[in-house]
Amino acid sequence: MTTTATYTIKGMTCGHCVNAVSTELSGLPGVNDVRVDLAAGTATVTSDRPLDPQAVREAVDEAGYEMSQA
Amino acid sequence: MTTTATYTIKGMTCGHCVNAVSTELSGLPGVNDVRVDLAAGTATVTSDRPLDPQAVREAVDEAGYEMSQA
Repeated sequence: MTTTATYTIKGMTCGHCVNAVSTELSGLPGVNDVRVDLAAGTATVTSDRPLDPQAVREAVDEAGYEMSQA
Repeated sequence: MTTTATYTIKGMTCGHCVNAVSTELSGLPGVNDVRVDLAAGTATVTSDRPLDPQAVREAVDEAGYEMSQA
């Protein structure tokens, strides 16, 4: 089953921020694709199973940013 | 002879930008120290000889930013 979820992330200001968030989210088990929209402040994650919201939150935090919404 | 010069750099928005600029400027021959002030948009470079302004400009460009002033 493929799941797609979009998360709102605070504080991304440049392409390096996009890379940092993409790298962390891509490392979550089951994630197949991550698209970060810098202007919108969102990350859309496609995975082969629903992700644990807490794991997503921690990955964003690890990248140095804050998730606004699960 | 130790030379210190401060350059104004456009477009730095986050710590990753600071790192990118610092890394490129630190790689210039003769550079001993680089201090980037994100809020001020400046980089202060200490070197053992005066730097070629064009080389500094190219290093900033390589990092993905633009120098405002030589």
